[in-house]
Amino acid sequence: MKLYGYFRSSASFRVRIALHLKGLPFDYQAVHMLRGGGEQLRDDYRALNPDALVPTLVDGAVTLQQSLAILEYLDETVPEPPLLPRSPADRAHVRAIALQIACEIHPLDNLRVLRYLKRTLGVAEEPKNAWYRHWIEQGFATLEAKLAADPRTGKLCYGDTPTQADLCLIPQMYNAQRFEIDLAPYPTLARIHAHAMTLNAFRAAAPEAQPDAE
Amino acid sequence: MKLYGYFRSSASFRVRIALHLKGLPFDYQAVHMLRGGGEQLRDDYRALNPDALVPTLVDGAVTLQQSLAILEYLDETVPEPPLLPRSPADRAHVRAIALQIACEIHPLDNLRVLRYLKRTLGVAEEPKNAWYRHWIEQGFATLEAKLAADPRTGKLCYGDTPTQADLCLIPQMYNAQRFEIDLAPYPTLARIHAHAMTLNAFRAAAPEAQPDAE
Repeated sequence: MKLYGYFRSSASFRVRIALHLKGLPFDYQAVHMLRGGGEQLRDDYRALNPDALVPTLVDGAVTLQQSLAILEYLDETVPEPPLLPRSPADRAHVRAIALQIACEIHPLDNLRVLRYLKRTLGVAEEPKNAWYRHWIEQGFATLEAKLAADPRTGKLCYGDTPTQADLCLIPQMYNAQRFEIDLAPYPTLARIHAHAMTLNAFRAAAPEAQPDAE
Repeated sequence: MKLYGYFRSSASFRVRIALHLKGLPFDYQAVHMLRGGGEQLRDDYRALNPDALVPTLVDGAVTLQQSLAILEYLDETVPEPPLLPRSPADRAHVRAIALQIACEIHPLDNLRVLRYLKRTLGVAEEPKNAWYRHWIEQGFATLEAKLAADPRTGKLCYGDTPTQADLCLIPQMYNAQRFEIDLAPYPTLARIHAHAMTLNAFRAAAPEAQPDAE
């Protein structure tokens, strides 16, 4: 398999964790999103990913886009260890956590969105950074309450083994730390993050462990 | 089952189509997002959906959030007719289309985001509407190219029977029309939309067919 990604992209980070958890070797092809006007915008990359987003996973003749679709594909083709629980209700619980991060937090803080705020709407640096923090803080507040109250929460978002929920949460925590968001109001998220980062797959997938890390 | 939704919410629209396709009767509970400061912000609704978003589906003892997690749950608990193809590669293709709409277009044009632009960043009406159109037009352009080129595209996004991809596309088309976006550059999307709206489940789920329609 070949993974096109960027060390700092949290969607790429999600897929890297999944590949490491499932023990799948992969070639990592860095797509530098800032250098040279953005390598993701080049025609050869757009042929693989028309939205000019990372990651893209190539598995033989199959080219895959969208990190959550890739996680489902990996679970369907390499079932062990599973990234989702067994019962439909619990699967929906885990997917809802993953989607809350992937739909309600992450897209608003994407590079192209921050650029639109700055370049097209003329938003200054400080209110742009406040925007970035706002969507993380709002999403984390409800996620903290949900996980703190749910008996299914364990050392990780669902029990003690990694699921799609953790694969979305941990990269988002990384972004939060990078923007120096105070994590004290989210003790459950912080506890899950600390535990996840003791696991080899999460450490191997972390941005600083990638060949394109700066 | 009980569905909490809002006639104009495209995430609610997705779930209504699925319930109608699968022939599942449901009580519809309108959550008016504009009236009285927003009924989704009331404590009794937040107890069901801490993010104060619609829809929420209650199935017996199970409370479900996030429309795409709900679609997967419905497919797992009521398999016929399926909302996803059989092969993992084709499932990933359909899910990637659904996620492209649900992650790259829809969250940016959400009510709470438009409010933040207006109230917190002081963005005026015209640039706010340009923002709204920008994310739809950018997403539709790549989706049009993808669907026009893919041999799996039929009368609908994948073949001739509805999938998750159509359940996301059709509500997004509705929003595009509401904001008077020129759909001429997207003939494949327009053709799929026209066909879908000849199907009973899509018509019954449409905003104007809901009891809270204005």
